[in-house]
This record gives sequence, structure tokens and C-alpha cells, in this order.
Amino acid sequence: MRIVVDAMGSDKNPVPDVEGAVLAAREYGDTVILVGDQPLIENELARYSIAGLSLDVVHAAQHVTMTDRPSVVGRGKPDSSMHVGMRLVRDGQGDAFVTAGNTGAVLAIATLHTLRRIPGVFRPALSTILPVQKRLMILLDIGTNADCRAEWLEQFALMGSLYAERALGCSVPRVALLSNGEEEGKGNMLVREAAELLAHSGVNFIGNVEPKDVLGGAADVVVMDGFSGNVFIKSLEAMSSTLLDIIRDELTADLRSKMGGLLSKPAFRRAYHHLDPFEIGGAPLLGVNGVVIIGHGRSNARAIKNAVRQARQAVSGQIVEAITTGLAKTSLSANDQTSEQA
Amino acid sequence: MRIVVDAMGSDKNPVPDVEGAVLAAREYGDTVILVGDQPLIENELARYSIAGLSLDVVHAAQHVTMTDRPSVVGRGKPDSSMHVGMRLVRDGQGDAFVTAGNTGAVLAIATLHTLRRIPGVFRPALSTILPVQKRLMILLDIGTNADCRAEWLEQFALMGSLYAERALGCSVPRVALLSNGEEEGKGNMLVREAAELLAHSGVNFIGNVEPKDVLGGAADVVVMDGFSGNVFIKSLEAMSSTLLDIIRDELTADLRSKMGGLLSKPAFRRAYHHLDPFEIGGAPLLGVNGVVIIGHGRSNARAIKNAVRQARQAVSGQIVEAITTGLAKTSLSANDQTSEQA
Repeated sequence: MRIVVDAMGSDKNPVPDVEGAVLAAREYGDTVILVGDQPLIENELARYSIAGLSLDVVHAAQHVTMTDRPSVVGRGKPDSSMHVGMRLVRDGQGDAFVTAGNTGAVLAIATLHTLRRIPGVFRPALSTILPVQKRLMILLDIGTNADCRAEWLEQFALMGSLYAERALGCSVPRVALLSNGEEEGKGNMLVREAAELLAHSGVNFIGNVEPKDVLGGAADVVVMDGFSGNVFIKSLEAMSSTLLDIIRDELTADLRSKMGGLLSKPAFRRAYHHLDPFEIGGAPLLGVNGVVIIGHGRSNARAIKNAVRQARQAVSGQIVEAITTGLAKTSLSANDQTSEQA
Repeated sequence: MRIVVDAMGSDKNPVPDVEGAVLAAREYGDTVILVGDQPLIENELARYSIAGLSLDVVHAAQHVTMTDRPSVVGRGKPDSSMHVGMRLVRDGQGDAFVTAGNTGAVLAIATLHTLRRIPGVFRPALSTILPVQKRLMILLDIGTNADCRAEWLEQFALMGSLYAERALGCSVPRVALLSNGEEEGKGNMLVREAAELLAHSGVNFIGNVEPKDVLGGAADVVVMDGFSGNVFIKSLEAMSSTLLDIIRDELTADLRSKMGGLLSKPAFRRAYHHLDPFEIGGAPLLGVNGVVIIGHGRSNARAIKNAVRQARQAVSGQIVEAITTGLAKTSLSANDQTSEQA
């Protein structure tokens, strides 16, 4: 397998990106192709013992920054590491692309300039993978499509279900809609309409779920519009970091608490580990014609390595082929009239 | 001041409801009118020393349960404690109504059967009050209106701003829209449209906020549609309880952690206190023609007492009068064509 890694993606690029690629090449034995500023990458590589590893470098003259505007960068930086990396995948010289870079730019460059959409896809969807109750679940869309139509959600459900089955090892994924109440009839108009569609679709639709059900592991695939999904994910992050800050403050407030905190340190480390997004590393952009795994800008080397693992699983599971076939089998497909480019 | 308390509201009614009323009458010196099953209430009252307190009981032959359907209960139980309590407020025999009962039923009975809307109100909004960075902020709508129009959000902003000013002691409330990004142009269509309206409205609109900004105290009033608001609030609750469960599990995993946990107990109690919803007690249903404070079904006596405090502040702040005047001064008002009953 040949995994293409964006060396210029993370906030601290190319340091964690290159180290993560080295760790992945060592652990998985795959070919890892680093794309970016060649001298910079080779400088970094010189710090590791890489004899016997299958590591290639492909030069890219430009790179996308976190503040670059996605709408501009697609045409404006045609030789960015994202363009070059995804062209390698498009042209069959790589099996997947992994990046911790600017999400909006990845989406624009994938959809409009390199891989393009799988035939029939209304809109690609950004996902996240959460470890819940010792299983993995996939949530989508978490930010790409702020305003959605019901049939887009239906397609997200199909793509998410195939991903859970083929890349997360879930045999019959339970698919749910995020809602403001579990009861039938709850939800906004979009959710109610999508629920109708999902009830008659091929996926194993179990109904609506609330945030607590999601964290309780009630579903394997949770579908939502990109606005609610983004609010949902960011609320979880905000609450967990607020709560941990409060606890940290209180644990240093007096001597007794300090001693307690010191003794509890390993327990806290274990607790934190349950929630550590770097354990997952990244999540797929679904609906484009190639495997693309997007990690957090703050990714460290371990996160990059784990994102490569996620990419490998998606490639082994032949997710792109599965979505292509899945869409072709249903009538659920963008036609010329509804498929303006996202 | 005469605060009407629903004795049949909470999950464990009438126990915490009556005890909370007693605590409130004692602490604030106001008249508290308990509404519900008179023999039951008097039985409960007999357990407390209430000599010298101004406590009245008004009988209500029916009461709304948590599983009653709001659409049915409005006409179906015309003598419920909610109907009787809100009629007292409507008829000037009470200044505010406090309940820990079925939220949907409160909304239906307030809007359609007793208090009704303040003239010009498009839709009443359910709010929540969060203690953040040692200040109080109000969030609305958190569940009443799953599908909103931009001008409804504009009105929520006005009502929330007046509440923050008059009942939460905030002199120039900063009003924001919950969004999937702070940047201008982010948001779904509704948020973008509402941002346009708010930029030219009388409120102190500071732009869009993300969940982390909300918890960081970036605004005093955060406005959203009821679907996103519900997802937001429930995500915070779900994450905080999940995280606390994980920490609790890890703190009992081995002897060292157990000792640490024991020593840290007061620190955890203080941390928990920061997030304790019972400290606030309840939040207003805004837009109806009377002060209505809704608490959580799991309310204990302290929560009920604190909900009465919230009611007192709303009454002192003359919130209903302020909203009535505020709406009359703007062109922002429901007219006959757009104001079908919610």
C-alpha cells in the first residue's frame, strides 16, 4: 500500500508530519510518500533512522496555510502539497492521502481540482470518528454543508454506513439521525424529512438520537447537517476542556487537593486517554473519488501515524469502490440538475 | 411579591416543590402560593415549621405528568396546576409562575390557554441560564422552535438582551449568534440572515460565536434556533456527565487512585458546584404575557428555591413590561399574517 502524507499540513509542519510518516512506515511496513518542500522534508528525515523503510519524497513547490481561503487556494496554489498529493492518488500513484491541513482547502482542492466527486454524490461530507464505549462510531457531516437537503443526509447515511462496515469493523452499522429528541416526530423539518427517506433506504436506520445517546454508543453512524454537526462536535470539545480546566484549578487550590491530584495523576491520564482525539488521528472526507483522511491541525506525530492507520483501513475496505457501487445501485444519486459543484 | 409555585411539577412532586417553596418564603420573605393537590400539599407543609411565613395554597384538581402530550394536555386538563397557576398570574393574583414540570406542556398552556403571547411576539422562546466565568448568560431558543425564521431570532435577541439587563444584572449585554465559525459569512443561511438583521437592530450585536466562546464568556446573550440550541445544551450535559463518569471510573480503578480520589473529594465537589444547574434553578419562557420560570424535572428543593429567586429578579426587572415596550418601539413585530399561534 502507498499512503501519501502531506508534510506541510499540521500547525507545526513539517515536524510532526514527517515524524508521523516515519512511525507509520516503521509500524505498518507500507510505502509512505511525503509530499511538500523537499529540502525541508529531507532535513527532517535526516533526524530519524529510516534505513529499510519505504519512504519516498515528492516535491511540492507551494503549501496551503491555515489562514488561506479555500475558495482562493484551489486555483491560486496549484502546486501545493495538497494538490500534488491528491493528484498522486487520482493518477494511481498513491492509494490514500493524509493531511492535517486546512480542512476547507482540502475539501475545495479534492472536490473541485483533483479527485472530484464519486459519480452521483450530491455533496462530499466531512466526518469525525469517536471512540465510544470501546467501539468506534462515525459522525457526518460535521461542517462542510451548513445547509442540507434531506436526500443529502440520506446519502451521508449510506456513505457513513459503508465506512463503518468496511473501515471501522462494524458488521451491521446502526444508523441514526442527530435530533432534539428521540421520539418520532421530533426534529426540525430536515430531520423529519430525512427520517422518512431513511426508513425506506437500504441502511439499518434506528431512528433519532440525542447527544447523550451518541456518547452512550446507541449508534454506529450518526448523520446530521453540517451546521448542527459542527455545533455538536465543538460543544463536546468545549465542554470537556472547560470541565478539565475547572477540575485542574480546583485540584491546585489547596494542599489536600494538590496531594489528591498528585495521587490521581495516572487515573486522570487514563481518563484523558479515553477522549484523546490523537488516538484516532483523522477521519475521512467521504464522497470524493479517493481516500482522503483529515487530521487536526494540532496533530502530533502519533496522530499522524494513526491517521495513516485510518487511511490503510479505508483502502483495505475499498471504501471508494463500495460507495461507487452503493450509489449506482440506488436511485439516490445526484443528476445534472441537482449536482452543481459544491 | 407573590410567586406562584407549581407543587406538582418536579419528578418527585410534591416533595421538593413544597420544600423549595418553604425555603424561598423563609429566605426572601415573599408570599409563595403553592398550586396543586391541596391535601397533598398541606401534608407536606406539615413537615416544616412555617409559622410566620407567607405561604398560601390554591387547589388544582389535575396535574400534568412528564409523559403527557403537550398538544393534548392544554385542553385535556384545564384544571391542572399549570393552568390554575398561570391563570393566577394572568388575573393579577400572582406575579410569576415557577414550575419544574413538563416543558412542552408549560409552553402550550402558557401560549395557547392562559397567559398568551405579548402583542407582537412571533414565537415564545425557551431559555437557559449558564453560569460562565462568574457571570450569568442567557441562551435562547433551546428547544421550542426547531425551525426558525431570521426575524424570530432577531426577536429572541431583543428579549434575551432585555432579560440579561433587567434580571441578570448585565448593563450592556453583548448579543451573539451561535454559529459554526466566528468569521463573518460563516453560519447556515438562517444565521447569515439573522446576522444581517441584528447588525441593524437596537441590540449590542457582537457577531457569531462558537461553543468554546460561549463557555469562555464571550457573550451575555446567545441566540440560536431551537434545534441547534437543544443539540448544544444537551451536548454540554452529555459531555460533562460522560467525562465525570470516566474520571469516576478511573479514580476507583486501583488503590492509589482511590486514595487520590478521596483526598480530591472536596476539590471535585467545588468543581461540580461550578456546573450545578440547581444553583440557577430555572430559566424564563420569554415572550408570554407573564413571568414564567421553568426548572428541570429533577429539581431538588434548593433548585426550586433558586428558581423562585430567578422569578423575583424577573418580576423586579419588569421584564414583561420591558419586552412589551421594546417590541412596540420596533417594527419587529408579528402581524396578523405571520403570527399563527405557535
